[in-house]
Amino acid sequence: MPLCFFSLSFLVQFLPGGGSGNMHSTAWRAVVMVAALVQICSSRELESNLSHPNRIVKLPGQPQVSFQQFSGYVTVDERKHRALFYYFAEAEMDPSSKPLVLWLNGGPGCSSVGVGAFSENGPFRPKGEVLVRNEYSWNKEANMLYLETPAGVGFSFSSDSSDYEGVNDRITARDNLVFLQRWFTKFPRYKGRDLYITGESYAGHYVPQLAQLMVDFNKKEKVFNLKGIALGNPVLEFSTDFNSRAEFFWSHGLISDTTYRIFTSACNYSRYVSEYYRGSLSSICQRVMSQVTRETSRFVDKYDVTLDVCISSVLSQSMVLSPQQVTERVDVCVEDETVSYLNRKDVQAALHANLVGVTKWTVCSSVIEYELLNLEVPTISIVGSLVKSGIPVLVYSGDQDSVIPLTGSRTLVQRLANELGLKTTIPYRAWFEGEQVGGWTQVYGDVLSFATVRGASHEAPFSQPERSLVLFRAFLQGRPLPETFTYAP
Amino acid sequence: MPLCFFSLSFLVQFLPGGGSGNMHSTAWRAVVMVAALVQICSSRELESNLSHPNRIVKLPGQPQVSFQQFSGYVTVDERKHRALFYYFAEAEMDPSSKPLVLWLNGGPGCSSVGVGAFSENGPFRPKGEVLVRNEYSWNKEANMLYLETPAGVGFSFSSDSSDYEGVNDRITARDNLVFLQRWFTKFPRYKGRDLYITGESYAGHYVPQLAQLMVDFNKKEKVFNLKGIALGNPVLEFSTDFNSRAEFFWSHGLISDTTYRIFTSACNYSRYVSEYYRGSLSSICQRVMSQVTRETSRFVDKYDVTLDVCISSVLSQSMVLSPQQVTERVDVCVEDETVSYLNRKDVQAALHANLVGVTKWTVCSSVIEYELLNLEVPTISIVGSLVKSGIPVLVYSGDQDSVIPLTGSRTLVQRLANELGLKTTIPYRAWFEGEQVGGWTQVYGDVLSFATVRGASHEAPFSQPERSLVLFRAFLQGRPLPETFTYAP
Repeated sequence: MPLCFFSLSFLVQFLPGGGSGNMHSTAWRAVVMVAALVQICSSRELESNLSHPNRIVKLPGQPQVSFQQFSGYVTVDERKHRALFYYFAEAEMDPSSKPLVLWLNGGPGCSSVGVGAFSENGPFRPKGEVLVRNEYSWNKEANMLYLETPAGVGFSFSSDSSDYEGVNDRITARDNLVFLQRWFTKFPRYKGRDLYITGESYAGHYVPQLAQLMVDFNKKEKVFNLKGIALGNPVLEFSTDFNSRAEFFWSHGLISDTTYRIFTSACNYSRYVSEYYRGSLSSICQRVMSQVTRETSRFVDKYDVTLDVCISSVLSQSMVLSPQQVTERVDVCVEDETVSYLNRKDVQAALHANLVGVTKWTVCSSVIEYELLNLEVPTISIVGSLVKSGIPVLVYSGDQDSVIPLTGSRTLVQRLANELGLKTTIPYRAWFEGEQVGGWTQVYGDVLSFATVRGASHEAPFSQPERSLVLFRAFLQGRPLPETFTYAP
Repeated sequence: MPLCFFSLSFLVQFLPGGGSGNMHSTAWRAVVMVAALVQICSSRELESNLSHPNRIVKLPGQPQVSFQQFSGYVTVDERKHRALFYYFAEAEMDPSSKPLVLWLNGGPGCSSVGVGAFSENGPFRPKGEVLVRNEYSWNKEANMLYLETPAGVGFSFSSDSSDYEGVNDRITARDNLVFLQRWFTKFPRYKGRDLYITGESYAGHYVPQLAQLMVDFNKKEKVFNLKGIALGNPVLEFSTDFNSRAEFFWSHGLISDTTYRIFTSACNYSRYVSEYYRGSLSSICQRVMSQVTRETSRFVDKYDVTLDVCISSVLSQSMVLSPQQVTERVDVCVEDETVSYLNRKDVQAALHANLVGVTKWTVCSSVIEYELLNLEVPTISIVGSLVKSGIPVLVYSGDQDSVIPLTGSRTLVQRLANELGLKTTIPYRAWFEGEQVGGWTQVYGDVLSFATVRGASHEAPFSQPERSLVLFRAFLQGRPLPETFTYAP
């Protein structure tokens, strides 16, 4: 299940640009212009869920459920008709007592709806023509809000295509902030609700940056009741995160001793990416990377080195394939299924979604040009300032991921704890999900936590849904991860 | 599925001793005295399989199969009535055209019948009252001979219990050689057949040592048609193999950065084991190991860090458990099932097996005192001399094993290739089983190979039977592992 960005085979070159959206409009008008289609939302507060214009009556192929779902657009810039698409699944039981959780996928440029909601921790997963229930959906614990951001990702769009040039972290964070402010106007009963921001991969940039804007905003007017952030396999500090990849490859058998040596001495991964994004790839890095790529093989999912790959995704489109024999407990082709599902006209109608400026919904955007040098700006310091503000932070890591390996994340969290002078409150130990070890954890000062998810991929809730739900529950409750074995006879 | 030896929780101390069995008797008399039971085997060559005294008519609970099975004893010392127990499963199809493969488990002191045959690559696996077929049994490719060695392991015994003191590699290798010579007298049609020796873990000592004795023996009289050896997650060189454990623990998230540091600086694992076996455990090593043990948790299988553990094995016997919900594709409780099965009286009768001097068949011996300092004697040099003799060698490694991690094995093989001046004939690359990557491989001089088995444990054929069978087939055929994707529509 490759995302677009942190893949060795990623060859599309995004050029940096300088454009910036206008984020400073304060009045909210619920008018979204979509090509020739105009969708009008009422600006008054909507008390009744059932009559909410963004309410999803039923998704095609969806089983009966007790909770409400909503989706649609929130305009973040009226002038440019820039609007972000969200999918909101209320908590399965007693939503009014449960927190609100925003989920963001990374990329940059990949969809939280397609990946997060429909492949990871949302209530359903597409399977052929229908949706099947995800027994370990995070809406068992919270009201889950999935956002496609920035504009140009998934169903989110701008009718001014210059908005897609030179997109950067600052723009994304501000659009996300505006989105949330205005989303509260659509869903007033969630205003002031306990709020958590979660996400994975490049959301290691998005989440802390958005949280920081909220903390700053709250100094003027306390709008956001931010209770914590959780980051899964996040990009926090370029060189540490990226260079831990070499060791992961080597220790998991993907590259030889010889290649490991040149991959850490002649050219390491952060240098390669840096050169690549600057359009000045040296011949030595090119040689090293081609050797690494040759050895690792394209038939191995770098996001989960022990999971099988989805053959229909890896092979060329022209090859007609027989139905997959899925012997794994997880469907490695779920991304393909999501693409098919979200491109159905009836599904788009049910979701109140529109394709603007593109002919197809894609997992990762093919239209935006993200300022990829943002990658090199560390966000671990922002995480530090959030911790200092008293915001609890959880960094977790699916331990089969070679893209942002656990070793880098663990090192960064420990380094941060040292810098902040936080003492270890829970020493490194295993945590449990039922009768089995779910992973390992360490907590510093009761506010900064690290946890691994055993046997999990880059997308932990996809490959280890049950363990990830236990982790999520403990995070929301502010409680340590289960220390003991739960024996259920 | 813990074996007895390489576990951190291994606390039974074997004291070194100096006893040595008498291995020099050359005449073979087929008389085995077992307590009061006397079993008489004819010494004449048995031409007919069906009338073979060691033929297994049918194992209790066994499904119908087309191949013949045999088991029983071969006396290796008449004077002391020392006899080794074997289980032999002929090839499923056309056994007369297929090679003979000897399989040895490690420990030292663990059973090849209980572990190798009934949990790994034999034709059946016990499940409750019955045996189920292993679809990827190695007897699809070869005539498989499983040997419980040395005397004191499993059903093998000596009626002189002093034979159990001071057992060492030299004794084991010689008994194994005598066993095989005499086994050929029982099965003359296998004399001169292409012969391979395979095994795992501490068999990294047994296999090369036995092969070396054969090569030496052949100089006088060419008896053994030795065609190659294969070693799975083998102990080849104490410090390299054992100290790679720290890195494996750390890179897989089982220990923290801090613990990794002290586990490589203050006391590494080879020093700990060395001190432990010498009965001179320093307080620093004790402290380091207790920290390592605390962090890794006893609920994680060190032999497969991502596989679930068999709860009924880990918990105390006193707890009555509900039937396991087996969600994995492999039965993590197979070892428990094997213990139950092999302790059934009807099974022992069908196997022509006797319990001598013990009341129960156990996976790893509780009666022999193995000279554990043998562990520190490297066998990689013997592997080197075998390669120089022209014997092909395969070292393979299940990549989820933290006990003898792939990183140590790969380093040792590469070092050996360099020492022997062998050039790389197949550069490090992925190999395929069907549509998925089965692991990675590198070949030196067309005679020395390294291969990982992806997603496999210390006991690769147990956790990845299909991939292991592909590996085994290529090894027997002397062909490179599949380089290309096999697409089966």
